[in-house]
Amino acid sequence: MTHDCSFLEALDLEDDQLSFAEGRRESHAADWGAEQRGRGVQPDAVVWPESTADVAAVLAAATDHGVPVTPYAAGSGLEGNAVPADGGISLDLTRLDDVIDYRPDDFQIDVGSGVIGSAVDEYVADDGLFFPPLPSSGDISTVGGMIATDASGMKTVRYGEVADWVLGLEAVLADGTIVQTGSRAVKTSSGYNLTDLIVGSEGTLAVITEATLELAGRPHQIRGGRAIFETLDDAAEAVFDAIRTDVDVARIELVDGLSARMANAYLDTDLPDAPMVFLEFHANHGVDEEIDLCRTIFEDHDVARFEMSDDDAEMDALWQARRELAYAVASYDPALEPLHPGDVTVPISRYPEIVNEAKRLGEAFDLLVPCFGHAGDGNLHYTVLVDPNDEAMVERGEELYAAIVNRALDVGGTATGEHGIGQGKREYLEAEHGAGAVETMRRVKRALDPTGTLNPGKIFPETAQAALEQKRDRQE
Amino acid sequence: MTHDCSFLEALDLEDDQLSFAEGRRESHAADWGAEQRGRGVQPDAVVWPESTADVAAVLAAATDHGVPVTPYAAGSGLEGNAVPADGGISLDLTRLDDVIDYRPDDFQIDVGSGVIGSAVDEYVADDGLFFPPLPSSGDISTVGGMIATDASGMKTVRYGEVADWVLGLEAVLADGTIVQTGSRAVKTSSGYNLTDLIVGSEGTLAVITEATLELAGRPHQIRGGRAIFETLDDAAEAVFDAIRTDVDVARIELVDGLSARMANAYLDTDLPDAPMVFLEFHANHGVDEEIDLCRTIFEDHDVARFEMSDDDAEMDALWQARRELAYAVASYDPALEPLHPGDVTVPISRYPEIVNEAKRLGEAFDLLVPCFGHAGDGNLHYTVLVDPNDEAMVERGEELYAAIVNRALDVGGTATGEHGIGQGKREYLEAEHGAGAVETMRRVKRALDPTGTLNPGKIFPETAQAALEQKRDRQE
Repeated sequence: MTHDCSFLEALDLEDDQLSFAEGRRESHAADWGAEQRGRGVQPDAVVWPESTADVAAVLAAATDHGVPVTPYAAGSGLEGNAVPADGGISLDLTRLDDVIDYRPDDFQIDVGSGVIGSAVDEYVADDGLFFPPLPSSGDISTVGGMIATDASGMKTVRYGEVADWVLGLEAVLADGTIVQTGSRAVKTSSGYNLTDLIVGSEGTLAVITEATLELAGRPHQIRGGRAIFETLDDAAEAVFDAIRTDVDVARIELVDGLSARMANAYLDTDLPDAPMVFLEFHANHGVDEEIDLCRTIFEDHDVARFEMSDDDAEMDALWQARRELAYAVASYDPALEPLHPGDVTVPISRYPEIVNEAKRLGEAFDLLVPCFGHAGDGNLHYTVLVDPNDEAMVERGEELYAAIVNRALDVGGTATGEHGIGQGKREYLEAEHGAGAVETMRRVKRALDPTGTLNPGKIFPETAQAALEQKRDRQE
Repeated sequence: MTHDCSFLEALDLEDDQLSFAEGRRESHAADWGAEQRGRGVQPDAVVWPESTADVAAVLAAATDHGVPVTPYAAGSGLEGNAVPADGGISLDLTRLDDVIDYRPDDFQIDVGSGVIGSAVDEYVADDGLFFPPLPSSGDISTVGGMIATDASGMKTVRYGEVADWVLGLEAVLADGTIVQTGSRAVKTSSGYNLTDLIVGSEGTLAVITEATLELAGRPHQIRGGRAIFETLDDAAEAVFDAIRTDVDVARIELVDGLSARMANAYLDTDLPDAPMVFLEFHANHGVDEEIDLCRTIFEDHDVARFEMSDDDAEMDALWQARRELAYAVASYDPALEPLHPGDVTVPISRYPEIVNEAKRLGEAFDLLVPCFGHAGDGNLHYTVLVDPNDEAMVERGEELYAAIVNRALDVGGTATGEHGIGQGKREYLEAEHGAGAVETMRRVKRALDPTGTLNPGKIFPETAQAALEQKRDRQE
């Protein structure tokens, strides 16, 4: 589907803020997830706003002309969240990259939505502060993108997800209305919580232009290391036991034996191809006592090795397999490609069950399914590897992928802990939330974006085309 | 305004679930705030639902008949949040008081919205767990009420507000649609965050029937005590300095010299009538080091006395003045009554400024304005005492009250940190959030409650009457 976007030329934009060129359109056709699966869709135009006023002008005009707008930034989403599924305008927010205000005494910073996540950390480091929920893609992803998907990261087990660190937003509705949400006060009971409504809405309700983020003080004590287990069940039960015992851990990452094998092959290391748990502890006092408590619990689950360090280089070395895992998985077998990025999250008491189920299904379907994830949150990432030329294998892979999502939902979990619904998880929305909640979400969507301008074809299960038809029906 | 509520008799309710009796209507006319100001409004009927299905049936029928419904529970709100401003039905949720499911391994409990806050704490105590954001009224207020106003309490400085501990809700929309929100997973990026949209919406978007709450492990080390300062400025600056230095404190409460004088008079104690800071520390390790850090900071601000204990009875004694303060203020002078309950919250760096401004205004207006509050959050409670028979004094009181709210807004704060907007703070909504955000809130309200059934006359600045007329316009 193509849309006539020539009306953009009438807006007050510089030449380098607007492009209809094939190359620029192609570079905004996909995100990491969609690219992997060859599912990009070229927008008809790309616009680079340099101010909130630019965003408002583009949105108001696009809504007037019935042209969809899909926000875009780093393109590091994994569920096609930034794919312009119905064409139209890709709104590239990366030039909104200013630090607008910084208030270290209040642990607060106001940034443009195009600021890279790790740049926030760098900006505040000299004051001993950091932005705790930074995802693993923090060196690439923008603040706006992280907020739009309610991302989280390895340290979420101790510090919470991105939503927990957003005090307020500036955002623009589809009709160009500029909205300020939240407060600089750390708590408020005033009016509806529009901040958390926009967080995680994947650009379907509003375009985020600025964010007020909270920061944390860096802990005085940091220790990191690795535990190696005999069996996957031991490792998963050990994690559950540590979390249930309220061990104060800042990262606790599970890597299954298959992933360990891939890491060993990639890194040419001679660690056992065994399940591992990577750990980091943050504290101002008593970090060693907390590590001892964790070690005692892990010993109850027959931990084979438990290595911990307070030296940065040693910690890096102990974490190497986890850090390089994504590359190890991607390069393990040139004939195999990842199918979808699994991201289920379950209550921690069900974590051993979901981990074992993923392993069992891999064996039953005769597929390689390396599993890893932010175990302390109950978050399991699993990558189904298939030969894209083998139709039967792809079909088995799809079936396996879905079986794990459905099991997660059965035990009270979520189809996506941190990647968002995007295009990839839409079919699970109603199974997870029920008809009443999904209808309520639709009402909110229609209230804030009645013409369906913003990011069509995402979150809700109808196709982009069906959404477009609904929009036309409403307009007639 | 009265409404014919006889349609309720056709619903499937037991005799003791419905009353039109004057006494029952009068007992649902006001909450603590409205009572104080003689601003109750009798509902035309009171209904006590005993199930979610009851709530859905009443709401659907009321919406059909154009009759407003105002949720009611403990009646402990301070801003008229539960006053049936336009008459109609008072929906008393106190019978939804079951613990539905308890999962200690997941630190989760599912409760009916009518469960009393402190009952949650009692229920989970044997497992070493507690519900951290319990407000000071936790022995009286219900879980649903706390969620509806996004309440918080003394421990919010360390643990966050109620919103931070609600994983999911069951709620009913005005048309009777039952909605399940959230997940039992501790994080999710799936769909819109309806949980946090309903939290703090004061029963204007949906009626909360159940909540899934997160729980925390009780800390191994608890210490409590009191610091006494020479001047209010010293006390406020000391709090700011402690928070800015990231002292890990679990309660940090400021009480000004006037409040201290009232407490001394009420309790017949001989403490100085001087500004005090009440403290509690929670930790699993190193609590004494944290107290030492705090003491050092307080000494930089000329603290006169710094007393701390690890003995429960001693801690209670040290905290007595703070604990009994509300009674002390209320009984200080029989001729004077509290005007409104001030609840501004500002960024912590502006806390000394707002505290001093409140004191200065009290002197300038020649009024008694005892100030106290959850200082670590930047939350200041102030009580303007006036002789209700002295019109000029009441007018000065109103002016002073408003001046503090406006100053709080000027420095980036909020008109209400934890009490909600209710009836009392509506005029500040747009000044705090701006026209774009308030219009967005209205759109959400219209989307979820197009007939204006739920709790009219709250949050938005129009009067209940105007809201009703708008509703009639829409229906015609």
